[in-house]
Formats: sequence, C-alpha cells, structure tokens
Amino acid sequence: MNELSVAALSRLCLHTITTKPWSIEEAVKHYSSAGVNGITVWRDALVNRDIRQTGHMLRENGLSVVSLCRGGFFPGKEASKRKAALDDNRRAIEEAFQLGTEKIVLVCGADPTQSLEDSRKQIYEGIAAILPEAGAAGVKLAIEPLHPMYADTRSAINTIAQANDMAESLNSKWVGVAVDVYHLWWDPALESEIRRCGRHNNLLAFHICDWKSPTTDMLNDRGLMGEGCIPLKKIRSWVEESGFDGFIEVEIFSTEYWKMDQAEFLKKIIKAYKEFA
Amino acid sequence: MNELSVAALSRLCLHTITTKPWSIEEAVKHYSSAGVNGITVWRDALVNRDIRQTGHMLRENGLSVVSLCRGGFFPGKEASKRKAALDDNRRAIEEAFQLGTEKIVLVCGADPTQSLEDSRKQIYEGIAAILPEAGAAGVKLAIEPLHPMYADTRSAINTIAQANDMAESLNSKWVGVAVDVYHLWWDPALESEIRRCGRHNNLLAFHICDWKSPTTDMLNDRGLMGEGCIPLKKIRSWVEESGFDGFIEVEIFSTEYWKMDQAEFLKKIIKAYKEFA
Repeated sequence: MNELSVAALSRLCLHTITTKPWSIEEAVKHYSSAGVNGITVWRDALVNRDIRQTGHMLRENGLSVVSLCRGGFFPGKEASKRKAALDDNRRAIEEAFQLGTEKIVLVCGADPTQSLEDSRKQIYEGIAAILPEAGAAGVKLAIEPLHPMYADTRSAINTIAQANDMAESLNSKWVGVAVDVYHLWWDPALESEIRRCGRHNNLLAFHICDWKSPTTDMLNDRGLMGEGCIPLKKIRSWVEESGFDGFIEVEIFSTEYWKMDQAEFLKKIIKAYKEFA
Repeated sequence: MNELSVAALSRLCLHTITTKPWSIEEAVKHYSSAGVNGITVWRDALVNRDIRQTGHMLRENGLSVVSLCRGGFFPGKEASKRKAALDDNRRAIEEAFQLGTEKIVLVCGADPTQSLEDSRKQIYEGIAAILPEAGAAGVKLAIEPLHPMYADTRSAINTIAQANDMAESLNSKWVGVAVDVYHLWWDPALESEIRRCGRHNNLLAFHICDWKSPTTDMLNDRGLMGEGCIPLKKIRSWVEESGFDGFIEVEIFSTEYWKMDQAEFLKKIIKAYKEFA
C-alpha cells in the first residue's frame, strides 16, 4: 500500500460489526495493516475482554476509537424495562470511558405495545436522565435517527428532523446526532436538516453504506458503497459543508458479506470507499 | 349474518389482491355474501376479461367499484420508459372508465439509477400529462405516498406531506391523495398532514392493514388489523374528522394469508375490521 492510498484512508473508520466474523483482535490487525485509521466498537466485541486494555491495544495499533455502539432502547411500557435500560446505558457510558472513546451511538428504541409519542417521550426522559453521567465521563451521546421501517421496535426517532428537535431541546454539549445514509437517504428534507444539524453543532457522526435494489432482508442486506442508489458523495458534501470533519464510518450489516473471507471483504470496502464515498 | 353486522360493514371495501388466490368472480361471490359493500380491483384481476361486463357483474352483486389499482410508475431515466408509462396510465384510465370506477390509485414509481429529485419531477410531469384524459373519463388520480423502504424502485413520494405538496401544486379536481396506514403510520406529521389533505379536498382513499413485529418480508408480510402496532382507530378518527366518509379499504399482501383457505381468511378480515378498524 503506497503513501497516497494510506493518506486517502485517513478519515476511514470501520465498525467492528461490519467484519463481524472477526474478533476485535483480528479486526484491529487487519484494519491497521490496511491503513484504516478509525474503529467504532460494538459492545458485543468487548465481551470477556478487559475494556481498558482493549482500548490501549486499539490505540497502540494506530486506531482512533471513534465511538462505542450502542446505547439507547429507552422506551418500555413497564417502568422496570425503562429502569433496566437506564442501567444499561450507564454501563455503556462506563464502558466508553474505559475504552477511551468520547462518543456513544444511541439507537433510541421503541415499544410496539405503546404509542410512538409515548416512546419518544421516554427517549427524551431517558437521555436526560443519563446526561450527568455522560458529562462526567466526557462522553457525547449521538442520537441516530433510524429508517421508518424500524419504527416498531428499534427507534421511534425516524427522521433527522426529529433527532435535531430532540438534541436542540435537550440543549447539552453532551448530546448530538449521528447521520447514517442508510436510514435517511430518502428524506426530502435531508439537506436542510443536515445543515441545521451543523449550525447547532450537533453533527457528531457520519455512517455510510448503500441501499441495494432489491433489498432482500430488512436488517442484514446493506450494500457496499456504490452498489445501490444512495447519493453518497452528495450527502457527504452536505455533511462536510456543515462543518463536519470527523471520521467516515463504514457500517454494513450483511449476511452475504459476512459469509466472505473477511480479508477479501476489507479490500472491497477500501476500494468502494475510495471510489464512491 | 344479522342486519346489524351487515350494516357495520357498509363502508368495508376489499382489494382483490387481499384475496389473491381467488379469481375476481370467486371474490365477488364471497365478498357479496359476507356483506362487504365495496371492491377495489387490481388490474391483474381483469386480465382476459371483458372489463365493461366485469364492472356490471360487480354492481349486480351489490358491490361499489371503489377504485382501480394501480397506475403510476412514471419515472425512468430513458424517455422511452417514461413514454411507455404514460401509455400504460392512459390504458388504466380507459380500464377504469370501462369498469365504471371513478378513481385510480397511483403508485408513483422511482428509478434507482437517477436521483429522487429527478424521479419526483417526472412523477409530476407524468400526472400532469394524463390529467386531460383522466378528466375526460371522470376518473380521479389518487397519489399514494409509499413507505420510505420503497423509495428505490416503487415510489419517490414517501410522505403524505410530499403527496399533499404535489396534489396542491397540480391543483386539479382530478388529483388527490390515498392514505394507507401501512406506509404512513410512523410519520410524526401524520395527523397534521391528514387534516391538511382534508382541508384541500384531496383525501380520496383510506387503506388499512397492520404492521407486524417482526415483519419478515418487505412486501408480503402485512398484518390483519389488530395484529400489529398501527394506531388504526386514531388514524381513522383523523381521516374522518377531515371530512372523509368513503370506503375503508382492506389491502393486505401476505404470503402467509394467501396460503390459507380464503373463505376462512375473509372471516378473519371481517372480524378484525369490526374489532380494530
């Protein structure tokens, strides 16, 4: 790999779930030697690890620890479920602190046995409740609006406008928004809401992949950049014109790609990133 | 079936695709004897039929022919594709006229090889182009906003706000909006946009089913009313408070239900309609 291509990867970050078959130790080795500079760690990758030591290991291999994925899932019709969610989010903040990352992505949650309005109210209350711990740990919480096809169980926050509203209403330096093209590409208000997000200093993260036609699974059939219909370069230009200069995070859930040799898949990711991101 | 339960079904309409295994002749016999008063005819049900005679047959069996499903699919990167779409929509208007229905549902289309903005522009132009024929035939065109998970190939109109914008911009008595709870239930602006739709006399149709958790297929896993998380009664109250007093149309695509004995399925539909719609 030559200097130029490594330099071109300076803002590339991979989510550990993108190469799910690899342990975090394998992932780090491969990311690092391919010239990837950032890693977002999914919590399942930390099971049975010393989290502080794992954070050191990541940095020793030249990787910035971009964020921890994921907190959230605040709503629940029963108070006991909401309480358990708060406890889990507090654990996530502690894990992020130990890992040495300054950001947690929030998949906010939804409970199909109650109204979306109730779920949204509980999301607001849940984030507000954990803000003191987030601030104390120096960890920012990035509200990720999820595609409307996940409104039943994964998130009652389904547009960037809703995420902006909530972040502005919470009005804390410890809360912002994660923009994921997969969830938001269809939205006619996307450009104006990305710019609004930037103006309020709330644009904390930028996740990429692609939307395949046809998409055969609602969860695990995301495409590599360039394989689908998302106008990635256009959305990236809006994000950057809004002041964002952080990592470009590749987050792909794909049964198909997880079946591949992951070293080959990593080569495909890097090629697609250079060409289409 | 007693008088009261038949009366309670006076506004119930079924889409032929809901009981897809039945021919239209079988469907009519069953709908009619169950006390269903309306039918929306999918064009595949008319293949190899004399459409005018089929319309008579529907009315002779006491069914109102609520609408023809479906026109649309206007966008295409190539002009030839757009031209073919206009021809097909003109055929649909002619079929609606022969069938004796005053409404066509438009699934507007999208072409993943071009931007959503281009697709939307072509949708607008396509509807405008066929308005003279629609008016001459006395057929209204109902723009149906589709769930964002269909933005790649089925429709670039994914919110009721977009459908309202387009209908108001076209500003014709021959254009309005079809509200389908499956596509729109997640939208935080749903109530206000339904009321706006009613104020502009654009609320032409109301389609119901439910969103199951989990949903296992993006197209053919719709639920019966009451099986999922859509607040049906609440949405219906908004629709009716907005002045809509037309048919309540049950439109369910379901591989699971299509496998059932359709007479049993029809009983389930009627029970679910009475209890949850």
